[in-house]
Amino acid sequence: MTGPDNINGISRRERKKKSDLFVCPLGGMGEIGKNLTVFGYGEDYIVIDCGLKFPEEDMLGIDFVIPDATFLVENKSKIRGIFITHGHEDHIGALPFILPRLDVPVYCSRLAGGLIENKMLDANTGYHPDFRYVEACDKVSAGCFEVEFIQMCHSIPDAFALVVHTPAGAIVHSGDFKFDPTPIDGNRADYSALARLGDEGVLLLMSDSTNVERPGSTPSEKMIGQTFERLFRLYKDRRIVVATFSSNLNRTRMIFATAARFNRKVLLVGRSMVANVELALRLGTLDVPEGQMISAQEAEELPDNRVVILTTGSQGEPFSGLVMMSRGTHRQVKLGSKDLVIISATPIPGNEKLVSQTVNRLFACGAEVIYERDEKIHVSGHASRDELMLMLSLTRPRFFVPCHGEYRHLVRHAQLAREMGVNAKNIFILQNGDILKFSGSSKAEVAGHAPADAVLIDGFVLGEFEGSILRERREMAENGVVVVSVVLNGDMRPAAPVQIQTRGSVYSSEDGSTLRELESAVLAALAQFSRSPGARRETLPTEIRKRIREKLDMNPRCYPTIIPLVTYI
Amino acid sequence: MTGPDNINGISRRERKKKSDLFVCPLGGMGEIGKNLTVFGYGEDYIVIDCGLKFPEEDMLGIDFVIPDATFLVENKSKIRGIFITHGHEDHIGALPFILPRLDVPVYCSRLAGGLIENKMLDANTGYHPDFRYVEACDKVSAGCFEVEFIQMCHSIPDAFALVVHTPAGAIVHSGDFKFDPTPIDGNRADYSALARLGDEGVLLLMSDSTNVERPGSTPSEKMIGQTFERLFRLYKDRRIVVATFSSNLNRTRMIFATAARFNRKVLLVGRSMVANVELALRLGTLDVPEGQMISAQEAEELPDNRVVILTTGSQGEPFSGLVMMSRGTHRQVKLGSKDLVIISATPIPGNEKLVSQTVNRLFACGAEVIYERDEKIHVSGHASRDELMLMLSLTRPRFFVPCHGEYRHLVRHAQLAREMGVNAKNIFILQNGDILKFSGSSKAEVAGHAPADAVLIDGFVLGEFEGSILRERREMAENGVVVVSVVLNGDMRPAAPVQIQTRGSVYSSEDGSTLRELESAVLAALAQFSRSPGARRETLPTEIRKRIREKLDMNPRCYPTIIPLVTYI
Repeated sequence: MTGPDNINGISRRERKKKSDLFVCPLGGMGEIGKNLTVFGYGEDYIVIDCGLKFPEEDMLGIDFVIPDATFLVENKSKIRGIFITHGHEDHIGALPFILPRLDVPVYCSRLAGGLIENKMLDANTGYHPDFRYVEACDKVSAGCFEVEFIQMCHSIPDAFALVVHTPAGAIVHSGDFKFDPTPIDGNRADYSALARLGDEGVLLLMSDSTNVERPGSTPSEKMIGQTFERLFRLYKDRRIVVATFSSNLNRTRMIFATAARFNRKVLLVGRSMVANVELALRLGTLDVPEGQMISAQEAEELPDNRVVILTTGSQGEPFSGLVMMSRGTHRQVKLGSKDLVIISATPIPGNEKLVSQTVNRLFACGAEVIYERDEKIHVSGHASRDELMLMLSLTRPRFFVPCHGEYRHLVRHAQLAREMGVNAKNIFILQNGDILKFSGSSKAEVAGHAPADAVLIDGFVLGEFEGSILRERREMAENGVVVVSVVLNGDMRPAAPVQIQTRGSVYSSEDGSTLRELESAVLAALAQFSRSPGARRETLPTEIRKRIREKLDMNPRCYPTIIPLVTYI
Repeated sequence: MTGPDNINGISRRERKKKSDLFVCPLGGMGEIGKNLTVFGYGEDYIVIDCGLKFPEEDMLGIDFVIPDATFLVENKSKIRGIFITHGHEDHIGALPFILPRLDVPVYCSRLAGGLIENKMLDANTGYHPDFRYVEACDKVSAGCFEVEFIQMCHSIPDAFALVVHTPAGAIVHSGDFKFDPTPIDGNRADYSALARLGDEGVLLLMSDSTNVERPGSTPSEKMIGQTFERLFRLYKDRRIVVATFSSNLNRTRMIFATAARFNRKVLLVGRSMVANVELALRLGTLDVPEGQMISAQEAEELPDNRVVILTTGSQGEPFSGLVMMSRGTHRQVKLGSKDLVIISATPIPGNEKLVSQTVNRLFACGAEVIYERDEKIHVSGHASRDELMLMLSLTRPRFFVPCHGEYRHLVRHAQLAREMGVNAKNIFILQNGDILKFSGSSKAEVAGHAPADAVLIDGFVLGEFEGSILRERREMAENGVVVVSVVLNGDMRPAAPVQIQTRGSVYSSEDGSTLRELESAVLAALAQFSRSPGARRETLPTEIRKRIREKLDMNPRCYPTIIPLVTYI
């Protein structure tokens, strides 16, 4: 550092301190989802990924969850760009909500850019991102940083690890990755770039922890191809329905190829399946011979053994193609004993029941179903233990931060790094919002905390969702509501009959006797109230609640939400 | 059949028809849970098992689900007894709700009887069952039936297959089983009884389908013992916490034995763990040396390496021992880096998230955690594919009904039976309530349907729970409620200000502007109403709802439940 000792009253020492490198994940730590990490050095910040997360079961009525952008908005003027590792929702899905508030360039592959554009349209933002398209091996300058894009393998094409070259040293952010030695699209992970970085010296490695619990290596996508080949041969007389992730365009490519080899045409079903295949065709990521894709009408006219239906719904999503087929409510595709259904996916944690119910319904349609339990019909997109060790071996980082995992994954990955020789005091299990500050290149510590609570999105309402709303929903969901309206005249006596209604309560029953009991409880509260001349009006609702609660307490586990409305005339 | 041609106006043919054998599952088909099957012949009915099921996620506020007992209550006078295969909740848990209405003897092992008694006490029924205790090899007469109890292996001691000897032939009901060649308690499955039955001829086999998707054989419980041995040796300096199913008393026995070998004492945590161990000690199912069980106080005073804590909570149940420890809210046990926690169980489908959250919290306490992903620390209690084939080989049934499984399991098990040579037309995938009627011993068909809807239990309210209540709860859970009270005078004009309250709605926000908008919508409805002299009073709530809905429609995904209360003075 050079320069005068004192600028604007800030000493050189202060300025130097201000220019420490920091890393701050606003999401993705202790969770799989809403990945977003901020890197800062002096007046320059960059962001890697900006994803969403699907809600927990107890987040009633919530559509999804995004990171808190407060820290970004406060430092908006410093942000030199958002860098996208790949186009999955947990890495791009929060952009429609956060990007318009920051209005900074987005560096990403053309495929990720197309997926982001579709998200922007869906969310009706009217905002047009300033895309700066990149390819593997590209290097981009952003303030004092240089960001390098390194080819990796994952369950979507164009997945990158990012190297953030900072004045304090190089940071490798693995993105979501695996080392697939035989990828479908031929784009192998760039082992040599990682090795070169290791030779040059890596300050910090942040690495995907999703599959740290799995021993060995994640099988190659190619293996799935062999399974499909076998199933297509075995069930050569049936119509074949394949459900998979619409973003897994390498699998899509493989299914198209297998279909062509078995002289079958492909019908696409599901909005995102159609949209993603169209996007991939436009960008040249996918290449399908003329006439290989057919309409529902054409599929109807072809014999069963000439048709493959490629559909959404591998996670049992309620309104997806496969689920509507399984319910018999799909407009174009009716399933029966002529069909083989292949679910080429594993349930994402939390979706197990939805998938299982879908499989049961598919069997009930009479179809034969090949799913998780049966065959090698899916491989993960994330590195298993041996590959995580390879990543550590290639990059040999001084500091290590496990990322993209639940807390247990981060602990296991930290244990692994320690076993691999990373100094225990240089390994940090961070929480969302932790600001990890580096002093030069030899010392780091958590030196602050940015706001990083989850922001819940209900519908497309932009903004925060108060926790109290969720609590109220949970209470009503468990026990229902009892609504009471009383009208009082000047001397605090009832001017009309008490009105009581219930919803979702065991007291909703037709049997009026309970309602009459509740009514008498309310009348008792009113009588008590009119006898207490000193009582303040505001306390009456509490009194009504109390009396009703006493009456309901005869059933010790019935606690509806009680809403009294008192009108004075 | 002999006897006069005509008795009480019923012909011999009619009587013969009435005396057809039937089998009717009221639960347990297409689901894992609430097992209950009725067997009938003429005027004699018997019931096998009477279990509960835990609710699906969308059954808001429901504690559990039991079978519909209508068919049983209607035929109460014919029921000769309820026969219990084993003491798991999905086989006994509905007894407190159904048994008092039938008041028939219960045939079961002493262990199952003890567990049923505890359930009866918990549910506060005040009913004392008429237990008839049985042991393996016992035969019991019940009307025209003879029921034989056959020793099997399962994840609870004293698990039986039942053979129902009927005038039309023998029915083998497998119960929940596996063939464990080296069971902890030495009670091996009675292969030879099954083989003898096969030789004598089995009319119908009903067999456990839970693990039909798993190839090979389910490992022996003994394997777990080896894993424990290894872990106890490896973590010899730590306190060891083991969470498992409290009913798996063979595992409990094994943990006590391992603890004793490593010179550790055992502290029991969790109500059901304490209750079940006490019961097993009383019955002699478990045998623990004097002084081997210690109090929390004593555990506190011993060094870490002398203590094992055996606790409930292996499924992440909210108020269980392990979960309270993981939250730091357990009164007696505080976890830290000195602890090894072993979760000796697999998440039951639907509990994955709860277990995963618990593991994350345990790691966050600083404990080392061994769970599913790591080690061989749990084996299933259900037969895998090879064992299911063995059951079919031994019994060689003429008819086959797969049971105890989701629909997909039943289909796979039916396919397996067909491959094993059972005639396809003699295999029936039944639904709950289906009455499978046998004509002699060569023909069977579904010839009727008994009521078999799920009965939902909220708290300990006995009786049915209306579907509409659940629907209302779901609606409120998704979007909250808006409650409106209006007071009108004789000429249908507002006599007081409109009152509006919301709960769990995005419109609950402090910002009063939306509430004012809703108020103006209500006033518009009232104005419209008073201008329409012909309008009937009953239609006003609908009009209010409509106007509010219109106002809210500006946000297309916000559909709160709207509850209008109109008072006329």
